[in-house]
Amino acid sequence: MTDAATKIVLSESEMPRRWYNIMADLPSPPPAVLHPGTLRPVGPDDLAALFPMALIEQEVTQERYVPIPDEVLDVYRLWRPSPLFRAHRLERALGTPARIYYKYEGVSPAGSHKPNTAVPQAHYNAAAGIRRLTTETGAGQWGTALAFASAQFGLECEIWQVRASYDQKPYRKIMIETFGGTIHPSPSDLTAAGRAVLAKDPASPGSLGIAISEAVEVAAQHPDTNYALGSVLNHVLLHQTIIGEEALLQLAKAGDVPDVIVGCTGGGSNFAGLAFPFLREKLAGTMSPTIRAVEPASCPSLTKGVYAYDFGDTAGMTPLMKMHTLGHDFIPDPIHAGGLRYHGMAPLISHVYELGLIEAVAKTQRECFEAGVRFARTEGIIPAPEPTHALAACVEEALRCKESGEPKVILTALGGHGHLDLAAYGAFLSGGLADHELSDEALAAAVATLPQVAG
Amino acid sequence: MTDAATKIVLSESEMPRRWYNIMADLPSPPPAVLHPGTLRPVGPDDLAALFPMALIEQEVTQERYVPIPDEVLDVYRLWRPSPLFRAHRLERALGTPARIYYKYEGVSPAGSHKPNTAVPQAHYNAAAGIRRLTTETGAGQWGTALAFASAQFGLECEIWQVRASYDQKPYRKIMIETFGGTIHPSPSDLTAAGRAVLAKDPASPGSLGIAISEAVEVAAQHPDTNYALGSVLNHVLLHQTIIGEEALLQLAKAGDVPDVIVGCTGGGSNFAGLAFPFLREKLAGTMSPTIRAVEPASCPSLTKGVYAYDFGDTAGMTPLMKMHTLGHDFIPDPIHAGGLRYHGMAPLISHVYELGLIEAVAKTQRECFEAGVRFARTEGIIPAPEPTHALAACVEEALRCKESGEPKVILTALGGHGHLDLAAYGAFLSGGLADHELSDEALAAAVATLPQVAG
Repeated sequence: MTDAATKIVLSESEMPRRWYNIMADLPSPPPAVLHPGTLRPVGPDDLAALFPMALIEQEVTQERYVPIPDEVLDVYRLWRPSPLFRAHRLERALGTPARIYYKYEGVSPAGSHKPNTAVPQAHYNAAAGIRRLTTETGAGQWGTALAFASAQFGLECEIWQVRASYDQKPYRKIMIETFGGTIHPSPSDLTAAGRAVLAKDPASPGSLGIAISEAVEVAAQHPDTNYALGSVLNHVLLHQTIIGEEALLQLAKAGDVPDVIVGCTGGGSNFAGLAFPFLREKLAGTMSPTIRAVEPASCPSLTKGVYAYDFGDTAGMTPLMKMHTLGHDFIPDPIHAGGLRYHGMAPLISHVYELGLIEAVAKTQRECFEAGVRFARTEGIIPAPEPTHALAACVEEALRCKESGEPKVILTALGGHGHLDLAAYGAFLSGGLADHELSDEALAAAVATLPQVAG
Repeated sequence: MTDAATKIVLSESEMPRRWYNIMADLPSPPPAVLHPGTLRPVGPDDLAALFPMALIEQEVTQERYVPIPDEVLDVYRLWRPSPLFRAHRLERALGTPARIYYKYEGVSPAGSHKPNTAVPQAHYNAAAGIRRLTTETGAGQWGTALAFASAQFGLECEIWQVRASYDQKPYRKIMIETFGGTIHPSPSDLTAAGRAVLAKDPASPGSLGIAISEAVEVAAQHPDTNYALGSVLNHVLLHQTIIGEEALLQLAKAGDVPDVIVGCTGGGSNFAGLAFPFLREKLAGTMSPTIRAVEPASCPSLTKGVYAYDFGDTAGMTPLMKMHTLGHDFIPDPIHAGGLRYHGMAPLISHVYELGLIEAVAKTQRECFEAGVRFARTEGIIPAPEPTHALAACVEEALRCKESGEPKVILTALGGHGHLDLAAYGAFLSGGLADHELSDEALAAAVATLPQVAG
């Protein structure tokens, strides 16, 4: 039995009481978000039909720290502080001198990091007198989190789920309904956007872009209804920083300082949540970790995309954000890590990547599931398909340490469990999973659709 | 925000290092287990073909405490100590002055309490030079736990799952395979027992009794292979007492003493794991909780069964145990709490029930799921169908406290999450769940098959 602890836990009284806003510490500010009509920077009024003012303020604040409201802390306590694990058994199986830590968010009600932002979003909307939230969901993690959070604050929650996922993953639908949410397959006949799609193709499998359009349409039409987004935006990344703030305290308890931090990136909120507090320390010179984003080879926005203004949705209804993007028309190959199938990258992550503060790699699907199965058999947790990307990069780094003999400290974000993704593991174990890599031709075709914006 | 903590956590250094054996403290010993052929008490040699000597010794030891081996503690640390939660949000929703605590075992690799015994069973078998474990599984919780535990000690794990469940719950099969286990639908053509059933009925849906026969047959035929059981036996209940030992420490930290302890009972290991350490305190006079077992109205072994010698399996191959039983031929109605569909009750629980040290109630399925949904929407955890029985009894007790104004301390065992049982929630939410109560006629017919044994 090893002496070093397996779980580094914090008591509730040690839970951080503020989120960290990296904008306060960046050497240069990120480019402005533009109105799609005027191409001028968006103002608060442009967003007020969809979001409460507290969240709009958080989107643009320059304050280094934002206090977490008591009502949010009270719900966070259902699962936070989340555990930091030392992966003793994985280390032994790899024969590496590296010390591997993983911050586990699968203990939350939704089974992922998503409630970290769903709860404050529900709170601020309820405090502003809103009665109902709408949103879209793909694989379903975000929808589950918002349904749970809405139940805590007495809000109705109405979710449009991409029909292909809605039909394939009935357990997600039931989980959302168990938490009290209402879920519709998208496209639906409940919105003009949905009806327009159905008129052309009654059997449309839907897309995230269409589902966003439906949720936004309903929110914009009803004064008592707002819209909520689960990643990409600044305030979402802000809420997720509680992950990294806790991990900082926990690593200090373990007496270790990270040499390498790896996290998977889709929209980027899980990665930013872990990495940004450590990036603050890096910028302050108190530690110097390599910070590495890991994305799917089939949807490589950081490693292959262009840094340009683009829409957040397929239909082109959102403001324009400068980000690493594969083009808003891009439809990624159908890999199982649904949470990483997004054409763009959070503007804040794109910006720190341009500044050279983080690096990025891409991984193919089978290497990721191989790491996931190895992790399950040693550490006992079956990871969601998304964080298997980070685990694959962890294993790679740990094996490099085995070669070099370096006892590096590796920290990763294990954003969720895979209990509702077991079909993907079944496909992998039976040899039925394919690898997808984005070809140069497909990339060129996708980015050709980018809107023409100076800057 | 309430001041009292939501989670009462223990550090790894506070984890109990011994299991508690209630046999040392009982006012009278439980009746002997009998050999089915000779009707004389079984001896160690009768069990040696299936179990390692360390477990056979634990089955009969009179020592009050059994040390937990370091190798077992090292695996327990992946999820233990498990959290004790104060159900603040459920209390508020009920408007009760009661203080409700739940000890949550869903944080384990298998998502239930089952690894608490799977890990030591795998350890002792590996230490005895065994290469492979066989077992049966119904809904799949036990098979998942044994597959995980076997992977930790380099053992092969071969599982026979009741075919009806195997076909209905593909996610369980994949989870077991992800942990490295091998799973067969039962009846299978791999054993004489299975072939005999298939010869009569090639489309047999199987039963737990048939699956036990297959697993036992393979273990008995191969010297390098042993059999493992997930409940009922003394050593299984012993291993589960770490739940109650932790809860004792945690409640003391919270400054509370339980007035009522409720747990669900199938074979009885989850209930005993929580209750026996508190029963020790009750017998010693240091506290005086009411201890209440909650069983399904469709399978009410304690509240309607007879206390008699009976077989553990349907086929009548196991030793005879004196227990509360509905008859080994009894086939319970198909309720969703598969873990509670067992004809008998652990002999140790049956004995303390006869001694008047615990009480028992039965609950119907819909009341249980109603409590489960209420719990999910307030506390954020979707419970497995089995512990919803205990939650229904918790809610009942808390509402009695609301009537009387008594601020009772209620403690319950939340043995697992329901992520792989969402189909049952779907059926409940759509109004498709039926209630089943055992009729007097069905009971009379079932117990008529009991073997005739004096005593």
